[in-house]
Amino acid sequence: MKQTRKSFLTTSLLAAGYAALPFKPVFALGKGSSKMKFRFTPYTLELRHVFTIASNSRSTTPVVLTEIEYDGIIGYGEASMPPYLGESHQTVTDFYKKVNLEQFNNPFELENILTYIDNIDHKNCAAKAGIDIALHDLIGKLMNQPLYNIWGFDKTKTPNTTYTIGIDKPDVVRQKVKEAAEFKLLKVKLGRDTDKEMIETIRSVTDKPLTADANQGWKDKQFALDMLHYLHEKGVVVIEQPMDKDNIDDHAWLKERSPIPIIADEGCQRLVDIPRIHHAYHGINIKLMKSTGLREAHKMLDLARALGMKVMLGCMTETSCAISAASHLSPMVDWADLDGALLISNDVYDGTKVIDGRVTLNDRPGIGVVKK
Amino acid sequence: MKQTRKSFLTTSLLAAGYAALPFKPVFALGKGSSKMKFRFTPYTLELRHVFTIASNSRSTTPVVLTEIEYDGIIGYGEASMPPYLGESHQTVTDFYKKVNLEQFNNPFELENILTYIDNIDHKNCAAKAGIDIALHDLIGKLMNQPLYNIWGFDKTKTPNTTYTIGIDKPDVVRQKVKEAAEFKLLKVKLGRDTDKEMIETIRSVTDKPLTADANQGWKDKQFALDMLHYLHEKGVVVIEQPMDKDNIDDHAWLKERSPIPIIADEGCQRLVDIPRIHHAYHGINIKLMKSTGLREAHKMLDLARALGMKVMLGCMTETSCAISAASHLSPMVDWADLDGALLISNDVYDGTKVIDGRVTLNDRPGIGVVKK
Repeated sequence: MKQTRKSFLTTSLLAAGYAALPFKPVFALGKGSSKMKFRFTPYTLELRHVFTIASNSRSTTPVVLTEIEYDGIIGYGEASMPPYLGESHQTVTDFYKKVNLEQFNNPFELENILTYIDNIDHKNCAAKAGIDIALHDLIGKLMNQPLYNIWGFDKTKTPNTTYTIGIDKPDVVRQKVKEAAEFKLLKVKLGRDTDKEMIETIRSVTDKPLTADANQGWKDKQFALDMLHYLHEKGVVVIEQPMDKDNIDDHAWLKERSPIPIIADEGCQRLVDIPRIHHAYHGINIKLMKSTGLREAHKMLDLARALGMKVMLGCMTETSCAISAASHLSPMVDWADLDGALLISNDVYDGTKVIDGRVTLNDRPGIGVVKK
Repeated sequence: MKQTRKSFLTTSLLAAGYAALPFKPVFALGKGSSKMKFRFTPYTLELRHVFTIASNSRSTTPVVLTEIEYDGIIGYGEASMPPYLGESHQTVTDFYKKVNLEQFNNPFELENILTYIDNIDHKNCAAKAGIDIALHDLIGKLMNQPLYNIWGFDKTKTPNTTYTIGIDKPDVVRQKVKEAAEFKLLKVKLGRDTDKEMIETIRSVTDKPLTADANQGWKDKQFALDMLHYLHEKGVVVIEQPMDKDNIDDHAWLKERSPIPIIADEGCQRLVDIPRIHHAYHGINIKLMKSTGLREAHKMLDLARALGMKVMLGCMTETSCAISAASHLSPMVDWADLDGALLISNDVYDGTKVIDGRVTLNDRPGIGVVKK
């Protein structure tokens, strides 16, 4: 006989000696004497290719893997620290040594806990994200639901992800494009004097739509506008951060004239930045390591939408832990750039996958990862 | 032997023949063949006192009580239709006859379902709220968690609620103030030529802080400013909707000069209104019957905060169903005006209570109500 959930629960609870009051919280989560236990482990990601953007090259990324344990359930998190963001194994470790989660009895009180975390220091956005992600994973597991269900999103509406082609020699670029056959959208790193060469090289092997990221590399607004017209003709559909993040006026000038949407990346870190810059960009790139994690990222998504802005969801080089966390927001964004775990050779988690170029959520609770 | 939640679940599942995979969604909610069943019942609330505001008087309020059943679990909701909002038993019933929730397999897909509901007609905000609230109650029960936990709020941070003193003769006003001894804050309805008399009458029996609501009743900005200075001197801490909702410029003028915060009520119905009016008011009054329910109310809360605005959480005359729903947002607001269920004599639900003047959340899942 097929049991309904309710009758099954009731039967189980009666068997266990619980009173069968309908809807009485069954396990009284967060009200017992359990404490949250926080652990962290520095780790170094090995990149499959040396990665070059406008400002630097590198072959590894330091991360710190986190765990928050409560009542026998473990939530996983991650802080990723590409060096240009000013965080490192040392700064994240120093930050985490100041964290005391045992003062909180209820892991569901995210607003309290994450406000406390945010107030420890005004920097350390990636370190904060490492705690936010583990907490979200934990509460998802405690509620036995994937985050996308808790947030009311539709897992079938996930977007294709872009796959990033770093700045490199033409032969290497062509090779990378061929390796990216699965992806429906490629992301091109620009902002150097080789920009047109990069585009021509890619266009010599594929006509897929492209997204572009100048990483503040263009110094002059008229040059930037000329580039945007050129890129538009070449099938680039959106551009990130054409010029210096502090040059808001020139971005506003460019926004009025650009043939394609302009997205703030370095120019928009957190929620508080959006009202300040929203007249100067068509949209924002939300990344958990900038936003301090999922809770503020979700608020940024809602704020951007309320202001009529486009939303891109990005990442650093990260394991499948932080990538999976971000992926639960992806049904609500215009563009996803969640290839971070695909660019490394030593992932330690199995989670959200890219299948046929598309961000593909699984049914596991929380952020949906298991250790490999 | 005390069982942890995990070992208890595992034991129960093994007993029921389920594989004991940790964190595998246990009941596969929303993935079976269950369909959501939607029911509704028109009902008329009887007010304890004839209620007079600037524009009208009345002694009843029509509501429609809703239920959404899924997999044996029932979520409760409510639409409340004070006549000045343009909805009625007839309009809500007509709207609900167009609703087909059976097309959705997963009640967790709030964004999909509520977008469908919103697109049925551009009006009918209260009718939409009746569905939104029942869905939130349902998913809270399916996850076995109160909404405040799902949203990450702290149930101990709920505010005092105001208690509304309608416009009436001095004897009646004094009597109402005495009956309101439990409340730490009283809300005064203004906007007629008896405003100063109302304030003097209240001040003859209490020195409690007051909030005031002019319901668009003042016609001239200089008169409004003079009134605000008078009210400030009389211990009024915040004013709602001094002038006509369409007169944004005069509210902006008043905002620059007012000694107390000015809150948009009639002037701010939904999320889309906030960017349009936020320069003209210090804050907004969020009500579920304006916002189409909890999901948009939550987004309005986040948007208002991101823009640096104050937030008041209000209500219509409602049963404890809609009041309890709203109360889960209350830990995040500056002022709560959730006395709607206290003003009626025929409530049909037991839910969030006002205890010693304070909004007091319970531990039940969903919105936290049971039928009386």
